Amino acid sequence: MKRIILVLVTAAAAVGAVAYLASASDQANGEAAPVFLSEIPKGYRDLKLIAVSRLSAGNGTSQLRAELGNDIAIKAYRERKLPFPDGAIIAALHWNEVSSEENNRVLAQGFPGAGIQSFVPGSGVNMQFMVKDSKRYAATGGWGFGDVTNGKSGDAKLMQTCFACHVPAKDRDYVFTHYAP
Amino acid sequence: MKRIILVLVTAAAAVGAVAYLASASDQANGEAAPVFLSEIPKGYRDLKLIAVSRLSAGNGTSQLRAELGNDIAIKAYRERKLPFPDGAIIAALHWNEVSSEENNRVLAQGFPGAGIQSFVPGSGVNMQFMVKDSKRYAATGGWGFGDVTNGKSGDAKLMQTCFACHVPAKDRDYVFTHYAP
Repeated sequence: MKRIILVLVTAAAAVGAVAYLASASDQANGEAAPVFLSEIPKGYRDLKLIAVSRLSAGNGTSQLRAELGNDIAIKAYRERKLPFPDGAIIAALHWNEVSSEENNRVLAQGFPGAGIQSFVPGSGVNMQFMVKDSKRYAATGGWGFGDVTNGKSGDAKLMQTCFACHVPAKDRDYVFTHYAP
Repeated sequence: MKRIILVLVTAAAAVGAVAYLASASDQANGEAAPVFLSEIPKGYRDLKLIAVSRLSAGNGTSQLRAELGNDIAIKAYRERKLPFPDGAIIAALHWNEVSSEENNRVLAQGFPGAGIQSFVPGSGVNMQFMVKDSKRYAATGGWGFGDVTNGKSGDAKLMQTCFACHVPAKDRDYVFTHYAP
């Protein structure tokens, strides 16, 4: 998988809303630990299913969403153990929901029930990641957050909203998604 | 995982709509090959994500759906190779879509955009499986179909609809789901 460098925001820079793109030397030099992820977790598309969801906007459009986890995250979910241990990775993949005309043609030919409509993933909206490292990301509940939209990392302004938005889920270790039965 | 025996319908019985529950001895005795799966693929919940989808009914309710595949199926998808090779397994997990009040409370507090609503998986509707074995399931496009609803296999009447409903996707080896980008 192509390695994509995300926006790095140091703990100090986050306060001042100053962001910069990480270079390999920045990371190698051991500068201040980033608040946000420095790269997309490798192999995220091979992670296991936590759940699916849909976000519907007021304008009639929706996103179809998949939440995936690595083995550490899945084990914690299945054993209902919180907080998630270090090393847990959660990936949230978001697509624009589109109507599937080819599926609807088949459904109209006799699938049980009338008026059934199929919706499938269209273009990708963004991908969001949470990686647990209780020391590295101590300032944000132990989670490093990442956002990639159109192959580009979120800007500093966006990245700073991640943790604040997850605070209401503090009792579930800042993770909104429940494991689908 | 608990082993659940599905309804077995032999090629001959399918025509006559006669079904019976498989016993271990039936399978061991090497009787006529079944048209449908004899058991749920083990570890199906650990398979990789192919796509997500939504099926909306005319009555305003929806299903949230996840389509998963084993490594053989995923490889075929990624390499865009058809037909799927023997051993490919596809699992489709279907849940009733329910509104997430806890997510909506958070979204109402300032998530960008007005009127955003979150929907998540509620109770499971059913699970459906396709297992490729071009010899064993030659009569149904090389696919063995399976359906489990509330832990019980679909009855003969339901199981006989599987292949017929997938015929319109013959050009895609009888698989409707596209790989989500």
